Amino acid sequence: MTHAIASQHATPEGVIDLARGDPSPDFLPLDAVRDAAARITADGDVNLLQYGHEPGDPAFRELLAATFGGSDGDPERWFVTPGASAALSLICTLFAGRGDGVVVADPSYHLALRTFRDHGLQVRSVPSDDGGPDPEAWAAALTEPVPGGGRVALAYLVPAFGNPTGVTLASERARHLTEACALHGVRLIADEVYRPLALDGDPPPSLAAADAEPASEVVLALGSVSKFLSPALRVGWIHGPARDLRRLADAGLLRSGGGMNPFTAAIVHELLRSGAAQERLHAVRAELRSRRDALHAALRRELPDATFVPAEGGYFAWVRTPGVRIGVEEGAGADGGVAEALRRHRVVVAPGMRFVADARRAPDAAERARLSFGHEPPERLAEAVVRLAAAVRASAEASPT
Amino acid sequence: MTHAIASQHATPEGVIDLARGDPSPDFLPLDAVRDAAARITADGDVNLLQYGHEPGDPAFRELLAATFGGSDGDPERWFVTPGASAALSLICTLFAGRGDGVVVADPSYHLALRTFRDHGLQVRSVPSDDGGPDPEAWAAALTEPVPGGGRVALAYLVPAFGNPTGVTLASERARHLTEACALHGVRLIADEVYRPLALDGDPPPSLAAADAEPASEVVLALGSVSKFLSPALRVGWIHGPARDLRRLADAGLLRSGGGMNPFTAAIVHELLRSGAAQERLHAVRAELRSRRDALHAALRRELPDATFVPAEGGYFAWVRTPGVRIGVEEGAGADGGVAEALRRHRVVVAPGMRFVADARRAPDAAERARLSFGHEPPERLAEAVVRLAAAVRASAEASPT
Repeated sequence: MTHAIASQHATPEGVIDLARGDPSPDFLPLDAVRDAAARITADGDVNLLQYGHEPGDPAFRELLAATFGGSDGDPERWFVTPGASAALSLICTLFAGRGDGVVVADPSYHLALRTFRDHGLQVRSVPSDDGGPDPEAWAAALTEPVPGGGRVALAYLVPAFGNPTGVTLASERARHLTEACALHGVRLIADEVYRPLALDGDPPPSLAAADAEPASEVVLALGSVSKFLSPALRVGWIHGPARDLRRLADAGLLRSGGGMNPFTAAIVHELLRSGAAQERLHAVRAELRSRRDALHAALRRELPDATFVPAEGGYFAWVRTPGVRIGVEEGAGADGGVAEALRRHRVVVAPGMRFVADARRAPDAAERARLSFGHEPPERLAEAVVRLAAAVRASAEASPT
Repeated sequence: MTHAIASQHATPEGVIDLARGDPSPDFLPLDAVRDAAARITADGDVNLLQYGHEPGDPAFRELLAATFGGSDGDPERWFVTPGASAALSLICTLFAGRGDGVVVADPSYHLALRTFRDHGLQVRSVPSDDGGPDPEAWAAALTEPVPGGGRVALAYLVPAFGNPTGVTLASERARHLTEACALHGVRLIADEVYRPLALDGDPPPSLAAADAEPASEVVLALGSVSKFLSPALRVGWIHGPARDLRRLADAGLLRSGGGMNPFTAAIVHELLRSGAAQERLHAVRAELRSRRDALHAALRRELPDATFVPAEGGYFAWVRTPGVRIGVEEGAGADGGVAEALRRHRVVVAPGMRFVADARRAPDAAERARLSFGHEPPERLAEAVVRLAAAVRASAEASPT
C-alpha cells in the first residue's frame, strides 16, 4: 500500500471515545485474512471472480448454518449479505415501502432507526424495561392503524446483548413478542450481531432458530462477522424463512449483481473452514470479558450512584447517572453543562437520547449513556470512567438539583 | 479451496448461451487479484479490516476520478459502491419512494426495471429509435402526473453501448435528455458500466462529466469494474453531484456499515495503482473487438435478412429477424415455435420482450433478441449464429407469414 487507509471513525489524540461501536484494532486478524486470501486464490478457480450465486455460495451457507444455526442447520434458511446493515436495508426494500409502519423498542439502535426513516417508514416505539419491550404495548403497536393508509410491515429488535442496552430478552418475553408478530403477520427483524459474543456462558438461542419449528416463520435474524473478525469484509447473513429468502434472491439487485459479496464471503468461508474464525471469536470473547469487567469495576468505584444492568455479552453498558443529564446531545437544550464537562475531560460517550425514537417512551434516557467496552483496552476504559466521573461531578456541582 | 465455487450462471453441456451478460472466464485475472490481495495485506495496516470511510477511501476515489472521470477529476463527486446494481438500489431508496415514477427508454435493461419495481416505483417508458429515446416523449413523460400522488423522481438510461441495444446516444440527444431532467428537477441515472469498453476508439464522455459544468447537476452516473475485471469483487461507483453523494454517505446503511466494500475496493485500488487494471481493460477491449467482429460477420453470413446496428462497444448486439418472433419468451403466447427450435438447436438468446416495459412503446421487440459477445470466444459465437439461423429458418418454414 502506498497510503494509509481511511477508516470510518477517528478519535482525536488524547481523547478516549467510548461512543465507538467498531471493534478494537487488536481484534482484527490481518495475518489470518492474508493467508485465507492466498489460499482461496491459489487453485485457479476463476469462478471466484465471477458473479456469485444470489443467496451466497451453498457450501458457505451450509457452514454458516452449522456454525451459527444452533438447532437449525438448514442452508435454505440462510442468505449471505454484506453485513447486517445491508441486510436491514434489503429487507426494508422488499418487505415494506414508504408510508408503512415499523415497530421498535424504545430505546433502539439509532442507525437502524435512521435506515427505517431513509426508507420512508413510520417508526412507532414501545417502552422497555430491563427485560426488553413491554409485551402489551408491543402487541398494541403492531395493530394500531398507520396514518396515510400504510400497514405495520416490520418489527425490529436487538434481542441478545442489545444495542444500546446490553440486555438480553428472557426467552419467555422473546416468545411473546415473536408470537404477537406471527399473529398479526408482521415480519420480525432480530438484529443478532452481538449474539455470538456471550461472555458468561453459551450464546442465547437465535430468535430465528426458536421460530423455525412452528409454522409461523416470521423472524428474520441478522448476523455478521463485523464484531469479532472484520467489518471491512462486509460479510453477514439473514437467517429466516426460506420463502422470504427466495424472494430476496429474486430481487433485481440480486439478479443483476449476483451474490452480494462473493470474494469476501469466500475469505470468511476459508476462515471458518480452517477454524481460524472460531479461534478468533474465542479470543475476542476472552478479551471482551476482561474489558467488560474493567468497565464495570471502574463504574462501581468511580460512579457509585450510577446504575446499569451488568452486560453478559456484546459491546455495551447502558449507564444511568441519576440527576445528571449525560444523555442529552450537545446543543439539544439544557444539559446542566455535562456535554461541555465531558469535552473538557476529554472523554466521549454516546448520549442516551441518540437511541430514543419517542422521548415519551424512554423517560430516563436523558440520564443515560451507552458506553462501549468493545474498542478500548481495560486500562483506557478505567481511565475513561475516571474522566466521566469527574465530568459528572463537575456538572452536578455546577447545577445542583 | 475444498469445493468448486457456485457462480450465478451455468450453461448446460453442449448449449451455447448468448443471453449471458457475465464476462468471459478468460477476462478474469485471478493471478493479478491474488498479487494485489497479498500486497495490500502485507504492511500491517489493520485499518484495512476496519469499518471503512462511508463514501470510499479518499485516495481510491481520487484515482477513480483520475482514471474514469475524463475532464471531471473532483473526488468529492465520486462514491464507491458494491457494483452498479447496488448503486441503483441505494439511489432508489434515498431519492425516491413507493408510488413515485421513473422514466426509462423502451427497451431498457430488464433488471433495472425489476429493481425499480422492487422499490414500488411506477415505470413509464419512452419509445426509442437507433439514436436512443425520443426527446419529446421523454420530456412529456417527465411531467405527466403520477397516479396516486407520487412524483417523477428518477429517470434511467444506458447512454453508452446500451443494454440491450448496444447503441450510444449521440451527444446532442444526450444533452436534450439531460436538460429535460434538469428542467423538471428529475435525477438522471446514467448506467455507464459498458462505457469503458469502447471498441473502435475512445470511450464516449460520461453524462456526469458533461453535466459537471452547468449548475444543473442532475446526472448520477454508475460505473463498475464488473465487465472487465471481476464481478465478484463488487466494486463500482456513482459519479455525480457532491451534494447527493453526501446524502448517500449520511444514510443509515452507510453510517451503520461504513464504506460498502472497503476490502475489495482496496484490491481494485491496488490493481489501478499498479496499472494491472488498465492493462486488463486494454486486453479485454482487444478480445471483445475480435468477438464482436466474429458475431457481426456470422450474422451477415448466416442471417442475411436480420438487421442490427453494429455495436461500437460493450457486450451486445440487438438483432431483428423480420417476420420471425425470436423476441417472445417461451410460454408467453404464440411464438411460431422459435423458442422450441432454439432449444432443439441448443442455443440461447435473450428474447427482446424481456427488455420491454410497455409493449406499445417497443413494437418490434417481439422480433428482436439481445446477443452477447461478452461471454463466448469467436468460434463459439460463429457456431451459435449457425444454430440460431437454423432455428430461425425452421420456425419460418413451420409458420410462414
